[in-house]
Amino acid sequence: MAELIRGEAVPAVPGFQASGIHCGIKDNDPDLALISSDVDAHVAGVFTRSTVVGAPVELCRERVQSGVSRGVVVNSGCANVAMGERGHRDAVRMAELAAGVLGCSPERVLMASTGVIGEPLPMGKLRKGIVQAGRALAPAGLPNAAQAILTTDTFAKLAAVQLPIAGQRVTLAGIAKGSGMIEPNMATMLSFFVSDAAVSASYLRGVLRRVAALTFNRVSIDGEGSTSDSVLLFANGLAGNRRLTSRKSPEADRFEQAVSDVAEALSRDLARDGEGATKLVTVDVSGARSRSEAERGAKRIANSMLVKTALFGRDPNWGRILQTIGAGQLAIDLQRAEVKLCGVSVFRRGSSSGPAARRRAAERMERDEIGIEVQLGAGGEGARVWTCDLSYDYVKINAEYTT
Amino acid sequence: MAELIRGEAVPAVPGFQASGIHCGIKDNDPDLALISSDVDAHVAGVFTRSTVVGAPVELCRERVQSGVSRGVVVNSGCANVAMGERGHRDAVRMAELAAGVLGCSPERVLMASTGVIGEPLPMGKLRKGIVQAGRALAPAGLPNAAQAILTTDTFAKLAAVQLPIAGQRVTLAGIAKGSGMIEPNMATMLSFFVSDAAVSASYLRGVLRRVAALTFNRVSIDGEGSTSDSVLLFANGLAGNRRLTSRKSPEADRFEQAVSDVAEALSRDLARDGEGATKLVTVDVSGARSRSEAERGAKRIANSMLVKTALFGRDPNWGRILQTIGAGQLAIDLQRAEVKLCGVSVFRRGSSSGPAARRRAAERMERDEIGIEVQLGAGGEGARVWTCDLSYDYVKINAEYTT
Repeated sequence: MAELIRGEAVPAVPGFQASGIHCGIKDNDPDLALISSDVDAHVAGVFTRSTVVGAPVELCRERVQSGVSRGVVVNSGCANVAMGERGHRDAVRMAELAAGVLGCSPERVLMASTGVIGEPLPMGKLRKGIVQAGRALAPAGLPNAAQAILTTDTFAKLAAVQLPIAGQRVTLAGIAKGSGMIEPNMATMLSFFVSDAAVSASYLRGVLRRVAALTFNRVSIDGEGSTSDSVLLFANGLAGNRRLTSRKSPEADRFEQAVSDVAEALSRDLARDGEGATKLVTVDVSGARSRSEAERGAKRIANSMLVKTALFGRDPNWGRILQTIGAGQLAIDLQRAEVKLCGVSVFRRGSSSGPAARRRAAERMERDEIGIEVQLGAGGEGARVWTCDLSYDYVKINAEYTT
Repeated sequence: MAELIRGEAVPAVPGFQASGIHCGIKDNDPDLALISSDVDAHVAGVFTRSTVVGAPVELCRERVQSGVSRGVVVNSGCANVAMGERGHRDAVRMAELAAGVLGCSPERVLMASTGVIGEPLPMGKLRKGIVQAGRALAPAGLPNAAQAILTTDTFAKLAAVQLPIAGQRVTLAGIAKGSGMIEPNMATMLSFFVSDAAVSASYLRGVLRRVAALTFNRVSIDGEGSTSDSVLLFANGLAGNRRLTSRKSPEADRFEQAVSDVAEALSRDLARDGEGATKLVTVDVSGARSRSEAERGAKRIANSMLVKTALFGRDPNWGRILQTIGAGQLAIDLQRAEVKLCGVSVFRRGSSSGPAARRRAAERMERDEIGIEVQLGAGGEGARVWTCDLSYDYVKINAEYTT
């Protein structure tokens, strides 16, 4: 497939502009991002499944139904969650302010907020900030927007691809922010994709739903889900390709693969940048009785504090991996099961592969990326999940908030 | 109810003897315990629900079916898990050796093992050790047995009650070991109860099942379950009370309450002694739509790394508590919900109770015991769970195993 472009090198996407500025919600860092399409774009969104959600998520869920949008305004530093009626009013107002700057109707603007919960949005700062962000809009502004949405992330997350689709060169770029839990209160995973591809709204929805299920929803830092998780995919059609309207459209698979590639790159970044993480961990479970058991097993391994601390300690501890599978009451046939760590088989046919294999695995576990492969021997289904290890710094980051 | 007797003060239970010795599985600490009844006792057992279990659990599950036993032999330092046929043979042999010492048929002896997995039991050491443990048997030996079953526990766990039941004074004593995960491989929660009460085997089973559901199964240190978790309850009838045969037997409720009191005391000890724990945390969820949602909510709070690190940091972070409830997709009505920390309401009617309440809660969170009360406002069901905080030491204990 097309080569992945990472970081500041991501190209401008025709017809989109972006900015990221400091409006004063945070002390010093950029805290307000604006992404806009010069023309109406098709849009699709996926959101947190939590039963506790912020006003911006409630509003966005409604607004993406139309399938059309001109852009999104995002602040960090304040999540606008658990603020009742006022939260709703402020989210509506935030979009109105952005619509004023973009010159479109307020319903065409989406919004997201991430940060402290239980605090009101500083609307005065936002009012001035949105005007400033509007002035800063630029075709090459995506890296600035990527900075402005960060919370405890240690690096900005950007990825893009350019490739011919249905007769034209298409550009797709995405940014994301951290699924590590944010100081002081809440987790949030935000990601925004922009593309000049011509894609129908309904097909765009299908693409995002399928891709998110296998990428963003397969990242698990600590098993928590947020009140504000949102992923938006905009496509403004300016590439002029033959319009993709379903999976059957010629080269629709190329577009879907491009979205998947960018989403996977960002998902891996999220896991790598989990709070306190020292390692990116890819968990592959195979041989499960069903796909849902495979996914559940991979997530159990990814979220097990015992497994995660062992990974931090470079300990090829297959016992903890099997134990969390068993505790999840997943079907496993120990005589046919196998556990590989960084490609080294450490448990096979009902018993340990011995101290030499253990040593070899431990050596490889010094690397920045660790692979865990578990064959359950109970069926034919599999699933992949990305996560990170559990370090002293995770505890430090999450315990050292003082009131 | 009857006063709880703790620690070394637990009285001998008529007709039972116990011992705890060092047989060489561990370097220095006691590692072999024997508990025996002078006469056939009724017995009931509850075991891990994991799909990965050790040979001792498989064998015990079969043997408790008879409802009759003369005692149990327990080693620490080696779990005899994932050892295939050999594991099974060794567990059978371990019981045979104990039966030789006790002078009973091997089927009358139960066994449990806890410690490293994937290593064979050192049968030579066990053979000599069981003879030595037999010689050491004494009516006052329960504290020694409680020591010999420990792994990463920092203190021995004993509790007892004495009370009149159905015409006679009855004694009930219990010991337990750690549900903190054990170095280097596996979690194990073991607990053994002995009583001189006269109780039918079938009623004994019912008592243990009901009590375990509300005590041992409500302790959650890190959401893991072990390959070896076992609880056994022996009753030898020597008290000579009118035999309890069902919940309707006169004063059967007194016996069940006694078992519950001892089990709750031991369960709280398990939570307090979770690996790296600095606090015993009691989580009460009320206002749930169903009992299972109440239990699931309480366990989500108890197992949330974000909540646990906040507790370690004395941070009255109601946001993380609501977030994990939401992420679990539990029914909650924020306008009717309330969160109390150490008795202080920090979230109520949809919003924060303010900085003064927050400060008051933070002060109280300096205590060794923390209470979390969550009213979901969605129904009438509730559940209680015990847990502990997540500290640097949890990471240290579980990461610093070196191969």
